[in-house]
Amino acid sequence: MSQKLDPVVASRTLAEHGVIDAYGHASVRSDSNPQRYLMSRNVAPELVTEADILEYDLDSNAVDANGRAVYNERFIHGEIYKKRRDVLAIVHNHSHAVIPFACTGVALQPIFHMSAFIGMGVPGWDIRDAKKGTDLLVRDAYLGEHLARALGTHPAVLMRGHGSTVVGENIQRAVGRSIYLDINARMQMQAIALANGEHPIVFMDEAEVAANVAWQNYDRAWDLWKRRVMARLEDPEIGAR
Amino acid sequence: MSQKLDPVVASRTLAEHGVIDAYGHASVRSDSNPQRYLMSRNVAPELVTEADILEYDLDSNAVDANGRAVYNERFIHGEIYKKRRDVLAIVHNHSHAVIPFACTGVALQPIFHMSAFIGMGVPGWDIRDAKKGTDLLVRDAYLGEHLARALGTHPAVLMRGHGSTVVGENIQRAVGRSIYLDINARMQMQAIALANGEHPIVFMDEAEVAANVAWQNYDRAWDLWKRRVMARLEDPEIGAR
Amino acid sequence: MSQKLDPVVASRTLAEHGVIDAYGHASVRSDSNPQRYLMSRNVAPELVTEADILEYDLDSNAVDANGRAVYNERFIHGEIYKKRRDVLAIVHNHSHAVIPFACTGVALQPIFHMSAFIGMGVPGWDIRDAKKGTDLLVRDAYLGEHLARALGTHPAVLMRGHGSTVVGENIQRAVGRSIYLDINARMQMQAIALANGEHPIVFMDEAEVAANVAWQNYDRAWDLWKRRVMARLEDPEIGAR
Amino acid sequence: MSQKLDPVVASRTLAEHGVIDAYGHASVRSDSNPQRYLMSRNVAPELVTEADILEYDLDSNAVDANGRAVYNERFIHGEIYKKRRDVLAIVHNHSHAVIPFACTGVALQPIFHMSAFIGMGVPGWDIRDAKKGTDLLVRDAYLGEHLARALGTHPAVLMRGHGSTVVGENIQRAVGRSIYLDINARMQMQAIALANGEHPIVFMDEAEVAANVAWQNYDRAWDLWKRRVMARLEDPEIGAR
Repeated sequence: MSQKLDPVVASRTLAEHGVIDAYGHASVRSDSNPQRYLMSRNVAPELVTEADILEYDLDSNAVDANGRAVYNERFIHGEIYKKRRDVLAIVHNHSHAVIPFACTGVALQPIFHMSAFIGMGVPGWDIRDAKKGTDLLVRDAYLGEHLARALGTHPAVLMRGHGSTVVGENIQRAVGRSIYLDINARMQMQAIALANGEHPIVFMDEAEVAANVAWQNYDRAWDLWKRRVMARLEDPEIGAR
Repeated sequence: MSQKLDPVVASRTLAEHGVIDAYGHASVRSDSNPQRYLMSRNVAPELVTEADILEYDLDSNAVDANGRAVYNERFIHGEIYKKRRDVLAIVHNHSHAVIPFACTGVALQPIFHMSAFIGMGVPGWDIRDAKKGTDLLVRDAYLGEHLARALGTHPAVLMRGHGSTVVGENIQRAVGRSIYLDINARMQMQAIALANGEHPIVFMDEAEVAANVAWQNYDRAWDLWKRRVMARLEDPEIGAR
Repeated sequence: MSQKLDPVVASRTLAEHGVIDAYGHASVRSDSNPQRYLMSRNVAPELVTEADILEYDLDSNAVDANGRAVYNERFIHGEIYKKRRDVLAIVHNHSHAVIPFACTGVALQPIFHMSAFIGMGVPGWDIRDAKKGTDLLVRDAYLGEHLARALGTHPAVLMRGHGSTVVGENIQRAVGRSIYLDINARMQMQAIALANGEHPIVFMDEAEVAANVAWQNYDRAWDLWKRRVMARLEDPEIGAR
Repeated sequence: MSQKLDPVVASRTLAEHGVIDAYGHASVRSDSNPQRYLMSRNVAPELVTEADILEYDLDSNAVDANGRAVYNERFIHGEIYKKRRDVLAIVHNHSHAVIPFACTGVALQPIFHMSAFIGMGVPGWDIRDAKKGTDLLVRDAYLGEHLARALGTHPAVLMRGHGSTVVGENIQRAVGRSIYLDINARMQMQAIALANGEHPIVFMDEAEVAANVAWQNYDRAWDLWKRRVMARLEDPEIGAR
């Protein structure tokens, strides 16, 4: 099966879960050339098919666009792939529950075992520290590189006023982590309100995080998500569109 | 393609996003006559088809109603089109998250880059300041004009106990802003609770707002929304209704 | 069209809006005999068809059940119809957002013009004041009468630990009010949190409530809801079940 | 009808209600051999069919797996069935609203009559008290037995950072309680915020809990849920997958 299917399944799954709407994108590093990555042309994620997947070099030039428009923020992907050899998949999203954390500096912490990776640290990034007066979009390599530095060796970075970027050693991780980042953020906001400063909140500790992150690939979920996407792609009505 | 399709796509998209339910309406200024606007007859937005779209003069008389009922609150549209030459599209909605802001006077601020336009100012309006003892509906030109004055040069106005009215230089903006106004309101309520007076909340600054508003037309989203609506309109089961 | 369609449309509409799940019921007073009311046999509301609608006398005996099971809480309906000649339709529901109000005694107030009827007063009722140690269900005429007295001349009554009962001069009002009662409750909880005791919350005043309640029949919404239900009932797959 | 249908209906119903996503599982004690229980092989709950249901002994060995993978956390089920002869059905889930309670130690209390069973006590369990540095999964009999002891004679146990396990004398109870546990948790969080320490919150008292738990089998709901699942299972498109 073509590797191009991975960003298709990822994009549609993230849209179905409300983690991305018409915006946000998912990429994978090319299996055949680690200096390349695969990501859709500029189209809403829930519409992406294999025919939309383009190949980009790490400076985020699309090598086979043939005039098709590309995402403005593709530099997020290229600059992270440059710095992080371990990263094979990236999701940029605007999931709603992370924004309050990104804008207040309250630290996300792992309150749910499906979100254990948060315990590896989720730093914040404010584009204003790189450049003042932007529209908040990561429109060039300079901004992408600045973001990639803030990400460092972590699994995700929160972007003030914007959303987050999540990485993984495979596409399942990048997608699963994006979904459970948002869920953890909602749970943590509720726990903080419920605790009201009067009850301690017990988060996963370092050893628990390490034990969980070691294997958590969201495999059972990925099987389900892929099956759902394939069923839709094979629907003749969708095919005819 | 007929301009009448724009309020059809807008109405159905807003209903799909839960920004309007059986109430609320979307209009566009006529391309062929700027002293006219196009809006549906009195019907629930998710049912609107091109055949329901009527033409109104700026005093909000429907010129081709042929006895069909019109929305009571059409004056919102006519009075704003009179005052604001730059406005080519208007949405009036009851989206849920804005009501708490409209009733408390807490200022909406741009916490999310998709909602940058909020940084241009979203004033509040209380119908009681125009007339006491109303049912809160903008039922005549006097109330419409009063609301239009409160809107001023801003992109939206909150209506106490009622909802909001959102304007744009094109239909995409009026629709996209309506959707992201509600999302920003929810995010801001959560950020305020999370910050709990102990953390600062970083909103977009003036320069960032200006850089974003300059181009944000929600084009990629509009393409998706239009595609979804067209697929439904072309469904023979819907056509047969 | 048979009057039996009204509780069918009501039940299915309330289920679709999440105001009732497998529980809750809607009734109408019989047009032909005001000492009778029409309500479904004991079945989940989203499955109700005209064939399920039974006729009850005001002591809540089903006159045409032919052995079919009836709702335990039918006495809510019979006892209110006895006391309130103006009431032609009743909905009993468990909508989620009203429970926090019903259990804390915080007064619901009309924050949204679609929910203006709340300004006519929504009293609370605790079944414990009528009888201790119940399962919270209104299982007999004694409890029904006690609830009806708490309702008094109001449009709705909150039931502690249980939900609410909503009445109207027609089925549209009973259904529309049930939907907007829940929406108002959510908006008011958010406004209270947002205001945080530091901002006043402006509710509709008495004159505004009176002006709105005078005519608000949720007609446009009812047309939409009825259309949706009829489309499903006419679907041959559903008919075949 | 085969007893194997029960965990199928349970799994799909819980998935439809968002109480489980790709994770979580439902089991029933075997009617023919109380030393055995029936549960799916390792697959996402919303995909389970009768063909996926395996038989396990109480040490949680699948006796008819034929090489098919099983759930890591099956020990939750076996160890509880060992200790609790009255328990004939078990659900393990990650429903979102219970996590804030599980992590703060704030006691769940019965605020809604559909959730009366909470009044029988819902203790908390922290896996750290049994073993340090786990990934939070109940991967062996030792952890399962430790959890079963924390459950004691109660209807449910909250698992810190993880979710809950809910038991019943029949499958309806285990499923219904799982759904209404989550709903109660959300309502209680809202009531606490609304009351703000200034209003008392009235929960069900002991006598009310006892009166309700005596009969509450969620029968009407179960009929609806089963009907929905059967309709999907009989859909030829699903059958063909």
